[in-house]
Amino acid sequence: MSPASRPQERDVFATLLETVRRRVDARLPQWLSPKLAAANAVSAEVGAVAECLGGLAMRGGKRMRPALLAAAYEAFGGEGALEVLDLPMVAIELLQVYLLVHDDWMDDDPVRRGGPAVHVMLRERLGSKQLGDAAAILAGDLASGFAQDALLATPLPAERVLRAARAYATLQEEVVSGQLAEMQATAKGTLSRSPAPTVETIHALKTASYTVTGPLAIGALLAGADDHAAARLGLFGRPLGVAFQLRDDLLGIFGDPSATGKPVWNDIRQGKRTALVTEMRGDAKAEALLARVLGNAEAPDAEVEEVVRAMESTGARARVEARVQELVAEARRALEALALPAGSARDALAGAVGALAERSS
Amino acid sequence: MSPASRPQERDVFATLLETVRRRVDARLPQWLSPKLAAANAVSAEVGAVAECLGGLAMRGGKRMRPALLAAAYEAFGGEGALEVLDLPMVAIELLQVYLLVHDDWMDDDPVRRGGPAVHVMLRERLGSKQLGDAAAILAGDLASGFAQDALLATPLPAERVLRAARAYATLQEEVVSGQLAEMQATAKGTLSRSPAPTVETIHALKTASYTVTGPLAIGALLAGADDHAAARLGLFGRPLGVAFQLRDDLLGIFGDPSATGKPVWNDIRQGKRTALVTEMRGDAKAEALLARVLGNAEAPDAEVEEVVRAMESTGARARVEARVQELVAEARRALEALALPAGSARDALAGAVGALAERSS
Repeated sequence: MSPASRPQERDVFATLLETVRRRVDARLPQWLSPKLAAANAVSAEVGAVAECLGGLAMRGGKRMRPALLAAAYEAFGGEGALEVLDLPMVAIELLQVYLLVHDDWMDDDPVRRGGPAVHVMLRERLGSKQLGDAAAILAGDLASGFAQDALLATPLPAERVLRAARAYATLQEEVVSGQLAEMQATAKGTLSRSPAPTVETIHALKTASYTVTGPLAIGALLAGADDHAAARLGLFGRPLGVAFQLRDDLLGIFGDPSATGKPVWNDIRQGKRTALVTEMRGDAKAEALLARVLGNAEAPDAEVEEVVRAMESTGARARVEARVQELVAEARRALEALALPAGSARDALAGAVGALAERSS
Repeated sequence: MSPASRPQERDVFATLLETVRRRVDARLPQWLSPKLAAANAVSAEVGAVAECLGGLAMRGGKRMRPALLAAAYEAFGGEGALEVLDLPMVAIELLQVYLLVHDDWMDDDPVRRGGPAVHVMLRERLGSKQLGDAAAILAGDLASGFAQDALLATPLPAERVLRAARAYATLQEEVVSGQLAEMQATAKGTLSRSPAPTVETIHALKTASYTVTGPLAIGALLAGADDHAAARLGLFGRPLGVAFQLRDDLLGIFGDPSATGKPVWNDIRQGKRTALVTEMRGDAKAEALLARVLGNAEAPDAEVEEVVRAMESTGARARVEARVQELVAEARRALEALALPAGSARDALAGAVGALAERSS
């Protein structure tokens, strides 16, 4: 099995990631500052909600999505230094904040990026679950407005910004459809009356869209790429994005919680239909075990551990790992086919394959 | 007291409203059709959620916001027939759908436009409060994506569309800040530790923004108006938008539920800090009554009726009516100051004053 990226390419992506992280970490609070001031001018409480968003945006985050955006921009001949991308990079991070806030509320996930989720902070601050939840939904909606505004303010020709903004709207529609589809796949009973989409369709919509294909498309369109080129770039982004989420499924069970920042085995107690769960189907004993434990928030550790062992013994883990490698190969072929000019941007995209599909956090 | 609009101007606005209503009612389902097909292609359940949105978008609605957008476009010299505005008009309606879906969930309002609210439909369809609520939030997020996409697809010069889209993002931020501020003003206890904004500030942010100032700004910017002109137009839109919401406060208590489509006295049981409530402050007996009944979902009809009578006897109703007239006069002066060219667009804006501030439904 060949590695997903050559070591040198991985270094190029790592260097880009580091540069982007520094820029985003500096520019995000700067750009949010007048927004937070406006919220504080309405009232201290509204300001506090906006500050929760700012806090989450600044609390870590690998800045992988803006790095992909920047690599695509450069690969498609975008001119100027990285600073013309400050606002779209900020936008893609704020889009993620918006999605995370709504998603964490939906799953009632208490922890995000190693700290309390926004709905948890707001329940505490407002002294009520109902108010905290409503405020969290509004906080997400506010982040969505901030993100749109940042992208639209990009200092590049209006036609390009407009096309990038349409790609952004499309990716929002995709993510949300994917979240709905995942809800359907996870829910028991009534929702099974119509067939749920496959795990990979859900991963493509829910994750690949805003993690990989969306940022790449926005970068390319901002550089002036046409729709055809952007579509071909999607043939690289989609398998890579799905591989990223499959790696997430694997890390959720077999990863080190101190590196991922997520509580281990949450996926099992929450009943998530991850690829690992799907790959256990067909084995009668495993099915019976899943029926008992999956989605049972009160399941004892011993039972959850039994599921984890079955993920290994049924070969589910090995099959998901193998599928990651297939997708990695597909992404590499699609990248070759793009025939991008040699250079650091092409290398960064090649390096992203390893960084996204073979990470440990 | 002079009427808010001359009868002839009101007719001009009514005619525009009727034309716009027909266009929007025809164009909305057409434009949504590929979006609903895409959702159905993910799964029947995702399609069903998208269709709930389409259903709400088509279920009545006065189409007042797109009419204001169209009037501003024409008043600022926008060229071409009304059809160049089909997409921004659709966008502003879908924005409203997005806001209504999240808002109805937040207030747990069961009825919208004479039918069940989206979260109520989805709880029923999905057989669970938790799933229905999550799906409703996602449905709102989906409508937000649809709305952005529609606006960005407007067939007008890219610079204008981009500036209109920024006005749209700003208005989303304003509405959400206003909703947060209203939540603070409505909540008892913990939230009162910092002063809440005034009712009129909340009305301006939460309602005037997306009902009047936002649609006007988008129309003017699409016509090529500069930021200065758009800001001056806001001096007309803001008092008109606040007057619109004060009329809403009045209709919520004294209106005919069969005309407004909303359950009567809901505002009182939900504890909304409407202008009527604020105007009762200072009267010790009224304060005691409010402390007992306002926000008490179980309050018996007789007690709610007592609050309604007190809204009359304390003069609160009369003061709110008087304030509507002041705002109407302010809007009319601001419209004069704009010195728009005589014509049907100017008359339509003048007519909108009466239509919004003196309506009965």
